[in-house]
Amino acid sequence: RVNPDRLWDSLMEMAKIGPGIAGGNNRQTLTDADAEGRRLFQRWAEDAGMTMQVDRLGSMFLRHEGTDPEADPVYIGSHLDTQPTGGKYDGVLGVLAGLEVVRTIRDMGVQTRRPIVVVNWTNEEGSRFAPAMLASGVFAGVIDEEFANDRRDLKGLRFGDELDRIGWRGDQPVGGRPIHAMFEYHIEQGPILEAEGKQIGVVTHGQGLRWIEVTVTGKGQHTGSTPMAMRRNAGRGMARLIELVHEIAMKHQPNAVGAVGHIEVFPNSRNVIPEKVVMTVDFRSHLLPTLLAMVEEFDARAPALCEEIGVSMTSQIVGQFDPPAFDEGLVKRVRGAAERLGYSHMDVVSGAGHDACWINKIAPTVMIMCPCVDGVSHNEAEEISPEWASAGADVLLNAVLETAEV
Amino acid sequence: RVNPDRLWDSLMEMAKIGPGIAGGNNRQTLTDADAEGRRLFQRWAEDAGMTMQVDRLGSMFLRHEGTDPEADPVYIGSHLDTQPTGGKYDGVLGVLAGLEVVRTIRDMGVQTRRPIVVVNWTNEEGSRFAPAMLASGVFAGVIDEEFANDRRDLKGLRFGDELDRIGWRGDQPVGGRPIHAMFEYHIEQGPILEAEGKQIGVVTHGQGLRWIEVTVTGKGQHTGSTPMAMRRNAGRGMARLIELVHEIAMKHQPNAVGAVGHIEVFPNSRNVIPEKVVMTVDFRSHLLPTLLAMVEEFDARAPALCEEIGVSMTSQIVGQFDPPAFDEGLVKRVRGAAERLGYSHMDVVSGAGHDACWINKIAPTVMIMCPCVDGVSHNEAEEISPEWASAGADVLLNAVLETAEV
Ligand SMILES: NC(=O)NCCC(=O)O
Ligand SMILES: NC(=O)NCCC(=O)O
Repeated sequence: RVNPDRLWDSLMEMAKIGPGIAGGNNRQTLTDADAEGRRLFQRWAEDAGMTMQVDRLGSMFLRHEGTDPEADPVYIGSHLDTQPTGGKYDGVLGVLAGLEVVRTIRDMGVQTRRPIVVVNWTNEEGSRFAPAMLASGVFAGVIDEEFANDRRDLKGLRFGDELDRIGWRGDQPVGGRPIHAMFEYHIEQGPILEAEGKQIGVVTHGQGLRWIEVTVTGKGQHTGSTPMAMRRNAGRGMARLIELVHEIAMKHQPNAVGAVGHIEVFPNSRNVIPEKVVMTVDFRSHLLPTLLAMVEEFDARAPALCEEIGVSMTSQIVGQFDPPAFDEGLVKRVRGAAERLGYSHMDVVSGAGHDACWINKIAPTVMIMCPCVDGVSHNEAEEISPEWASAGADVLLNAVLETAEV
Repeated sequence: RVNPDRLWDSLMEMAKIGPGIAGGNNRQTLTDADAEGRRLFQRWAEDAGMTMQVDRLGSMFLRHEGTDPEADPVYIGSHLDTQPTGGKYDGVLGVLAGLEVVRTIRDMGVQTRRPIVVVNWTNEEGSRFAPAMLASGVFAGVIDEEFANDRRDLKGLRFGDELDRIGWRGDQPVGGRPIHAMFEYHIEQGPILEAEGKQIGVVTHGQGLRWIEVTVTGKGQHTGSTPMAMRRNAGRGMARLIELVHEIAMKHQPNAVGAVGHIEVFPNSRNVIPEKVVMTVDFRSHLLPTLLAMVEEFDARAPALCEEIGVSMTSQIVGQFDPPAFDEGLVKRVRGAAERLGYSHMDVVSGAGHDACWINKIAPTVMIMCPCVDGVSHNEAEEISPEWASAGADVLLNAVLETAEV
């Protein structure tokens, strides 16, 4: 079993970097805080005897050597970046539990045949630069490296420039590394494990996602002197589309979800009818036909809802992945480890996207989840207990030891 | 008559300061561009023999002396600040036409008994710092000076600090200056004069306004892993309120208008259900009972629309004025001047708020309007013709000469 206090202390120490305003974190990708968090992780890992490589998109690979350095390594990976008002565990737990696994293996004095590589993937959250899981997506060959470097945040800053600025662009090519298996341990970010009283979620599948960036265009005019009949209010178009997204998702629940989290209004002046609204629709389902049907219904109905009120719209997909099914052998191994350790467990579907969803395309991959309080995540109030954190880390340790071959 | 080319040249010269991105202007109040525009106006006015005083809120008073310096002066005032994506004429025309009136009087070699004071009122637009017509409101005694200094923009910058920063805080007390009469010449910002083929709008009344700042609060949670039934989506609350505002205004049109121009979403991340939305509702009518009825209906229905979907709301009035009726004697004088000059004219109601609406409370006040193309204003595409500009300036000149007593 891992050292629960050491794991928890590391989580609390990392949370001091990029503090939020309400007890959580704002350590968004490629900010100064991200750079500082990376340095802390590097120091801890090197203190545990690991060696670092960094790829051209800033993903960090910390390697614990195996007795057979030629054997394909076992990967443990997640992310240290957070939402603008994010929690202390989303992503961070997966990276620091990976570190804790290596620390524990050293304490135990055992050696694995396969090397173990703990990864911090760059820009998992996607809130600063869409899409989410950007660096792991390039690593898996589904996103173009040039495209990734050219992503821009809301201030217009370029991903590639920001990566250079914080000094974390490495020299390793993105992708092409041999991976025997990859494990990602993550908080559930939903309410089910806590409600069911289970310690461990064995993740068999994930939801697929489509992010649709919609631009509604009307006419910017005076709110006072423009007659009602002459208005082309892009804000009303946005309002109708927000309700459409909700209506479509409700038709398919509990097999789907949908919402609009990102909205920019132009010129955003109290006495100007909105000229333009840019917003991102987020549709998800673990059933591909359902996901496609939602997008199809949105595409079919949204333009008419805009035209009815004299505004127009365009849309483009800015993030997408299909529902992943994780490796059956590894799923069994995780379930078996939870069983042996005496932890209560259940099979779950991941509601969120994870780096594991992309790596799953190129190597056998699986996820382990622990509960989180009230299912709250992407919120500074995100909370887990030290016992939950270490139970999942124990399962991770056991499954990794089995896979890396002691 | 005024010199139409000189007036137009001055408009074009001023428009070079704080250029927009689409042919208009971004010379928002208390920015560096605002400071530069002020300096240009000061130079032009001083070149025309005028002397400047500036009050503690930055309003500029440029005085052309009368033969009786003790007589209460005639004021001509409007504003040089613009919307973030504003036009070249909204406000600017009124200030520069005032300057052109004085230039013309000097060219004519006539002298008026009463001094003439051309005013640039600070922060008329209200888009950077709510409410609109801020400095003229304090001047008229309806807004507190301390309150004005404490207004903050979306970046959190304080009005008083920004005024000091651009170096335009004067030493004159705000208000308490004798005013015999005030004239404000402005573009219509609506479509009626052009549609009716009239050169001059004689403004008899104005619309009243209520700005209601609404905060909708839900819960920031993951867009992927939060079941639909558990969501408290503040963005949906916003969507419902935008449509409510439209519905209420439509009930009362053509006697009322309503829209939401300002919307901020928190944390504004693609994969976070909106936790909070701050937005400003703009209701207007030239009928006070209608205006009050709209606010009452909004207050009665809005909270329930939020509660139905599990979000809550609070609201506060951040801008307000009742429908003004301008001075009947001055209205007649403007109508008479248009008549004498042979310009087609009609009585109109101002759809927008103007500094004249506040000054009307403390001194006889009137407005003159010229058409604008397609009624477009608060938009960089705002356009007028040189002929329209000078026709209104001719009317202003004649009405001012009569009032200042040649
Ligand atoms: N785990 C997580 O929150 N990832 C961000 C990508 C997503 O929106 O699902
Ligand atoms: N004239 C003008 O656009 N003033 C701004 C105040 C308002 O919103 O009416």
